[in-house]
Amino acid sequence: MTQLIKARNNKITPLMRKVSAGEGVSAEFIRRGISKGTIVLPANKNHTGLKNPCAIGTGVKTKINANIGTSKSCSRISAELEKLNTCVKYKADTVMDLSTGGDLPKIRKALIAASPIPLGTVPIYEIVVSAKKNNTPVEDISVEAMFEAIEKQAEEGVDFFTIHAGVTKSALEVLKKSKRLTGIVSRGGALMAKWIMANKKENPFYEHYDRLLDIMIKHDVTLSLGDGLRPGSIADATDKPQLKELYALGQLAKRARKAGCQVMIEGPGHVPINQIKKNVDIEKKVSDGAPFYVLGPLVTDIGCGYDHITAAIGGALAASFGADFLCYVTPSEHLGLPTSDEVKEGIIASRIAAHAADLAKGVAGAEKIDYSMSRFRRKRNWKKQISLALNPEKARAIHSRLKTNTHDACSMCDDFCPMKIL
Amino acid sequence: MTQLIKARNNKITPLMRKVSAGEGVSAEFIRRGISKGTIVLPANKNHTGLKNPCAIGTGVKTKINANIGTSKSCSRISAELEKLNTCVKYKADTVMDLSTGGDLPKIRKALIAASPIPLGTVPIYEIVVSAKKNNTPVEDISVEAMFEAIEKQAEEGVDFFTIHAGVTKSALEVLKKSKRLTGIVSRGGALMAKWIMANKKENPFYEHYDRLLDIMIKHDVTLSLGDGLRPGSIADATDKPQLKELYALGQLAKRARKAGCQVMIEGPGHVPINQIKKNVDIEKKVSDGAPFYVLGPLVTDIGCGYDHITAAIGGALAASFGADFLCYVTPSEHLGLPTSDEVKEGIIASRIAAHAADLAKGVAGAEKIDYSMSRFRRKRNWKKQISLALNPEKARAIHSRLKTNTHDACSMCDDFCPMKIL
Repeated sequence: MTQLIKARNNKITPLMRKVSAGEGVSAEFIRRGISKGTIVLPANKNHTGLKNPCAIGTGVKTKINANIGTSKSCSRISAELEKLNTCVKYKADTVMDLSTGGDLPKIRKALIAASPIPLGTVPIYEIVVSAKKNNTPVEDISVEAMFEAIEKQAEEGVDFFTIHAGVTKSALEVLKKSKRLTGIVSRGGALMAKWIMANKKENPFYEHYDRLLDIMIKHDVTLSLGDGLRPGSIADATDKPQLKELYALGQLAKRARKAGCQVMIEGPGHVPINQIKKNVDIEKKVSDGAPFYVLGPLVTDIGCGYDHITAAIGGALAASFGADFLCYVTPSEHLGLPTSDEVKEGIIASRIAAHAADLAKGVAGAEKIDYSMSRFRRKRNWKKQISLALNPEKARAIHSRLKTNTHDACSMCDDFCPMKIL
Repeated sequence: MTQLIKARNNKITPLMRKVSAGEGVSAEFIRRGISKGTIVLPANKNHTGLKNPCAIGTGVKTKINANIGTSKSCSRISAELEKLNTCVKYKADTVMDLSTGGDLPKIRKALIAASPIPLGTVPIYEIVVSAKKNNTPVEDISVEAMFEAIEKQAEEGVDFFTIHAGVTKSALEVLKKSKRLTGIVSRGGALMAKWIMANKKENPFYEHYDRLLDIMIKHDVTLSLGDGLRPGSIADATDKPQLKELYALGQLAKRARKAGCQVMIEGPGHVPINQIKKNVDIEKKVSDGAPFYVLGPLVTDIGCGYDHITAAIGGALAASFGADFLCYVTPSEHLGLPTSDEVKEGIIASRIAAHAADLAKGVAGAEKIDYSMSRFRRKRNWKKQISLALNPEKARAIHSRLKTNTHDACSMCDDFCPMKIL
């Protein structure tokens, strides 16, 4: 039985109780959210080391996810474990292993074993990598092989799966007719599209959706419906292919929920500021309020090198309008795999966005830390300010860089500290 | 005659023509905006090295300002000239010299001489520093001394002045009755408040406002009405003292405009996301559309070490709602004076915010660069993408960090590049 089925049966589970404590809401509030499908609690029964589970959805704090994982050109397992530590240290709520290079099962198992936070994957990556090893091209992968891989990962303890079930034949027809600037920019979306077009068959995860749900329900893996047709540029934002897929994802979310499978929906991508509210509103409407997991959104295409900032702007805004879960973006987005330091920068930018949104939407208790920080600022208590900072090491380094003569003001204002003048 | 008076006399000046070219609007559009007071063009007649003037206001690109300047603990002139170079290199539109340490006139003159972009100051800083040298406390500074300093700076070629004329006796009464968490956080605001309270007299810049306007008009210095009572914490946002001052600034802006003095209004500060639109709307309403120059706004109090990001979120949102001019915030805000590298980080974050807002409000031609970037991304043309980046050195460094085997994809996706799969 999944958390959703239990919630629907009016059962408050230990997990619900645990996550409610950190939110400042009642366990009953969590139960009700899960039963309605407006909250998910990703926690695979087989992820035994899951020490810090979290609730994602309406009425709880906005959560953030950090993507890690190898690619062909960088596939050291130690580097990924280091990134996982960075994620935990800087307080990502969840992590996704998006590895596509090296020994995927080995990397994934090591990450699951080491991860105290929920871990997600995009199973199609492993499916394609395994096939490649046997010289099987994408289009020749069997439906059986796909489901076998998914079942295996579910057994291993992955807490949530991104599945691009909305990249359907009819959605691809809409895409073909559109005049997109950047086509498909989702790796999973592109792989599904390739398989569908080559085989002239329907998306296997769409066609055999009930089979997928059965596997996920068995292990209580949360389904994250991937947006394979998300816009990859401002020019493509909120266009027909994107919306066609989003409507399909809404239907699929309702089916999953009905079956007892926890489900959320993934969102864009590249979206200008003035279209973000519309994107959130549509997602909530078509899915009866499923948690919205957004990648950015990036509010301009030109931020490479600084896309953690571009994404923080879009993420803060999206979450203030009701998005529930922000996928971080690192400074290396569009350019290369992130280093551990860039993972840290991405997490912190994302946390700022999530917290700013929580202040705006009035999440319980969100303003307390701002109040504390400002009270210590007023008192010029630097130790306490630094201890409350998102990255105390960095705050301390900046503050201690210049010795002021006044001791109790910082070098920015020095004698002109307004807190001291009056 | 100021640009405003000329505009009102239907005269299109060479400066109007020059700035219109970079905006993709007609010189007549600029003239009309200046004549209505919805656009300012800060350009002191005595700033002979002003090679890159700019228009700030409705219908033109959102501009960004970078603050530099010394404090007591860090007053090397060479460091400030280096920061100025950084500002120009990374494309700040204007710069403010906020020095409070060292030989202020010498630093300022060197910066004016070296600056191809408009330069602003907060004259009260020099007024107070000069007085201190003569052991004169703030409260004993004469009104004459204040106006002498302002006249001198105007003659030197400063393009815009921040003057805290709205910190009036009655505004301070409102402040006293309020339950602010962080009181006054503006240095200029705190100094004016101290003088007013000690002398039990009205703010000299408010009382002798016409005299101030005469000096500014003589040299065409643009007046930036400082928000001395801006909120310094989320808890204080949009409170009575802030609004009391803002209404006064609106009245003062109308008086300045009527007299022929170019004028803009400064805004907060710390404001949660859900109050930003209201702040912009009120400013526009009370001032009949004067350009709004915002400091941030910072959407949470807890970002120290990363406040360039906190400010980019608020700035992007404010500008998308109609704010015209973003004062950058650096990662060292609340902790110390920025290094040249932090100046760079602040500028780039601010440029991202300004550009994202321009896309949202549909500023002429804003989307062109996004279109180009995305077109080159689609083509996997890395050279061109890097050349269009906000900081090509950084983008190049990230991209070249890992050698991929595929040459034409980046290490993030490698073989899984969605642009290549299809």
